[in-house]
Amino acid sequence: MPDKSPYSELKERVLEANLKLVKEGLVVLTWGNASEVDRERGVYAIKPSGVSYETMKSDDIVIVSLETGEVVEGSLRPSSDSPTHHVLYKAFPSLGGIVHTHSEKAVSWAQANREIPCMGTTHADTFYGSVPLTRRLTEKEINDAYEVNSGKVIVEHFTEKKLNPEHVPGVLLPFHGPFTWGKNGMDAVKNSIILEEVAKMAMNTLLIAGKSMEAPDYLKDKHFLRKHGPGAYYGQK
Amino acid sequence: MPDKSPYSELKERVLEANLKLVKEGLVVLTWGNASEVDRERGVYAIKPSGVSYETMKSDDIVIVSLETGEVVEGSLRPSSDSPTHHVLYKAFPSLGGIVHTHSEKAVSWAQANREIPCMGTTHADTFYGSVPLTRRLTEKEINDAYEVNSGKVIVEHFTEKKLNPEHVPGVLLPFHGPFTWGKNGMDAVKNSIILEEVAKMAMNTLLIAGKSMEAPDYLKDKHFLRKHGPGAYYGQK
Amino acid sequence: MPDKSPYSELKERVLEANLKLVKEGLVVLTWGNASEVDRERGVYAIKPSGVSYETMKSDDIVIVSLETGEVVEGSLRPSSDSPTHHVLYKAFPSLGGIVHTHSEKAVSWAQANREIPCMGTTHADTFYGSVPLTRRLTEKEINDAYEVNSGKVIVEHFTEKKLNPEHVPGVLLPFHGPFTWGKNGMDAVKNSIILEEVAKMAMNTLLIAGKSMEAPDYLKDKHFLRKHGPGAYYGQK
Amino acid sequence: MPDKSPYSELKERVLEANLKLVKEGLVVLTWGNASEVDRERGVYAIKPSGVSYETMKSDDIVIVSLETGEVVEGSLRPSSDSPTHHVLYKAFPSLGGIVHTHSEKAVSWAQANREIPCMGTTHADTFYGSVPLTRRLTEKEINDAYEVNSGKVIVEHFTEKKLNPEHVPGVLLPFHGPFTWGKNGMDAVKNSIILEEVAKMAMNTLLIAGKSMEAPDYLKDKHFLRKHGPGAYYGQK
Repeated sequence: MPDKSPYSELKERVLEANLKLVKEGLVVLTWGNASEVDRERGVYAIKPSGVSYETMKSDDIVIVSLETGEVVEGSLRPSSDSPTHHVLYKAFPSLGGIVHTHSEKAVSWAQANREIPCMGTTHADTFYGSVPLTRRLTEKEINDAYEVNSGKVIVEHFTEKKLNPEHVPGVLLPFHGPFTWGKNGMDAVKNSIILEEVAKMAMNTLLIAGKSMEAPDYLKDKHFLRKHGPGAYYGQK
Repeated sequence: MPDKSPYSELKERVLEANLKLVKEGLVVLTWGNASEVDRERGVYAIKPSGVSYETMKSDDIVIVSLETGEVVEGSLRPSSDSPTHHVLYKAFPSLGGIVHTHSEKAVSWAQANREIPCMGTTHADTFYGSVPLTRRLTEKEINDAYEVNSGKVIVEHFTEKKLNPEHVPGVLLPFHGPFTWGKNGMDAVKNSIILEEVAKMAMNTLLIAGKSMEAPDYLKDKHFLRKHGPGAYYGQK
Repeated sequence: MPDKSPYSELKERVLEANLKLVKEGLVVLTWGNASEVDRERGVYAIKPSGVSYETMKSDDIVIVSLETGEVVEGSLRPSSDSPTHHVLYKAFPSLGGIVHTHSEKAVSWAQANREIPCMGTTHADTFYGSVPLTRRLTEKEINDAYEVNSGKVIVEHFTEKKLNPEHVPGVLLPFHGPFTWGKNGMDAVKNSIILEEVAKMAMNTLLIAGKSMEAPDYLKDKHFLRKHGPGAYYGQK
Repeated sequence: MPDKSPYSELKERVLEANLKLVKEGLVVLTWGNASEVDRERGVYAIKPSGVSYETMKSDDIVIVSLETGEVVEGSLRPSSDSPTHHVLYKAFPSLGGIVHTHSEKAVSWAQANREIPCMGTTHADTFYGSVPLTRRLTEKEINDAYEVNSGKVIVEHFTEKKLNPEHVPGVLLPFHGPFTWGKNGMDAVKNSIILEEVAKMAMNTLLIAGKSMEAPDYLKDKHFLRKHGPGAYYGQK
């Protein structure tokens, strides 16, 4: 009888987060991946690459070293986007979980190479300001180390624009799609649900108004601070 | 053994109304809330703030005093939008139930800062004239008492425009979203379903016609009066 | 023990047709109605007005005289659109079933006051030429006998344009929505499914092409005649 | 007791592929068909024409000779599109399965007479370059042998443009809709799911950006080659 994995609870949670993406309609076929980090033990758990969600078991979830990016436990290859998760976990210590999807409307904004302006309170409740769009990777960056550089360009964007990843829990990569994050895997999933909803509403708003809209700053502040920070009064104590 | 709550039936109905919002796809995550008033006993029952619909029980529903706006029964915080409900119940004696959602298409019109013109009979059957859009709250109104002032600006709009809330069972707040109401909680839910459907059709119509459309007044009158008032002949006697 | 209704099979079929509309997502709340005619016995069966689909039983279906338009059997009021069905059954002897819905995309074209041009083979397989749009009713026609005149304006359109209702199994009423028909109730439901699908695709095509498209006549002929008439070879013999 | 069909496994797989189309929402009513070829035995199995998916059994699947296009086994008529499948299997030896649908968004691009440009990585992962659009068939081609010529014009397009059907697993026919293919029937279904998703995103992108977008060639190459060819590293070994 094999020893039980020391990561079984983490893997179980990451499996659930990945299955939730499917249930919420954010993932088609095998597109998309969720991970969660355990900073004390220096690892993150991530979906295996190209495996069907219908048959995925918690033991298929791959454990990766936060230090080296190498597989620590698991017989399958990690998601091909694992290096992007790795870069983000290393650069942003507040991240507990990361999700990548090809959800329809968020991808559409990414393909249009447009950030999503804050057009209303649904957006402002979770994202402080626009959902940002990074610069395009160069040909060299893509050919040298595509997935690593996808992470680096996100870090570069947040650093240069002085964005706090806790206040802006997601980003769009041009021609590609969204990454979101949160306190843990399931929280990152929640933020990917919100991002997709916000992307839908923003597209509709563009079409109805015939132009982009922007909520006033004091409304954005009110909604974000109603839910976040010391003065928050949304939800239970 | 605890005494049974005197409000248990009211709470049961409000729970059902809230769950119906989820079932109809009008609510994502914990966004949205339904309430119902009992004017004889001077209270309304409302969803608790930020609680998952999957685990919500009727005992989580909060009873609030119509007089003071204070919690009368329940261990959880009421919805953060409770003060808006409170203002509306006080100002409009005909209201029996109120619903707030972030339903996709109604929010999109709100974000576009446009009222929804009556483009056809689906709209005219329930809303007499446009689904109105209030003015924007000022920075001061938002910072002083956001939720109370969200209610007040609705009342101001209906008063100034001489709108009858029984004939116009809903409204849009700019950059935010819809409030609807009705004879009771479930009737308010029904009107939020109708508003979302009307908002979808109006957006499509804009895109197909390339401009806004407006049904003739005599068609609006016919459809509204077929369903409402002494000459109504839709439905059973 | 009461005598069994002589119309029980007809009522059963009409109940099924109405429930199919809900299952296919063409009907919200109580909007929409399906009927089927029995020309030998001189009656048609139709949904009652404003009754919930969730509790509707076959005995709620109302039997109406084709001669007089009066109720022959049933304790509930027939659909408020019953006079429209009546006019159509009288004018078009080939009709076996009629459906009216407020399906989202077909209503959107009706609200835009535009017929749906034949943009491709999905359309041409069932509708020979455009899905027509009648003229608007006058104020007098609406106030005098709205539902009867809704039927009459359809008949007027088909007569003036020399359209064969067997080749064009549906129509749009301006600012209102679609009526479809077929060999029986379920066939009319099938044509309302097709009309909604065709309306979706035509709207998308407008948006993608930036203008209306029109399939060549020889492609329209080919597809329609592949399925209809003596040379048809689609389906089983 | 009848002899068991030598094609029972093939028919079972083709039934499953056809039912998967319905489950994925790519097919309405009886529109669409999937087939799979067995090149060793010189036959392909295809859906019967106009049969309801709800009652279809594996014995309804029709076996057609790859040599002659004639039915080899089965009592029902093959899909009316069978000659198109036949032409494609003969011309492209790498094809193992073929699917035709009237999926909403792919049809909309076909009706707009526009190829789908590669606007991002979701597209580039599966289609190398645009999803092509063939030229329109002439009146003579349509009247002489519509379904055969639908296949021939696809072959003509791929030949003239030097497209490899393994790298471009689908195509649009003007005013009609998509054909996709793959290693087997289920793989062709998978590519029809992807095509519909890509068509949705491309339409949204057009509307958000106000113009067509095109991913840079090095990003297209990276994504396609990450999944295909000797250097592929997506999925499991």
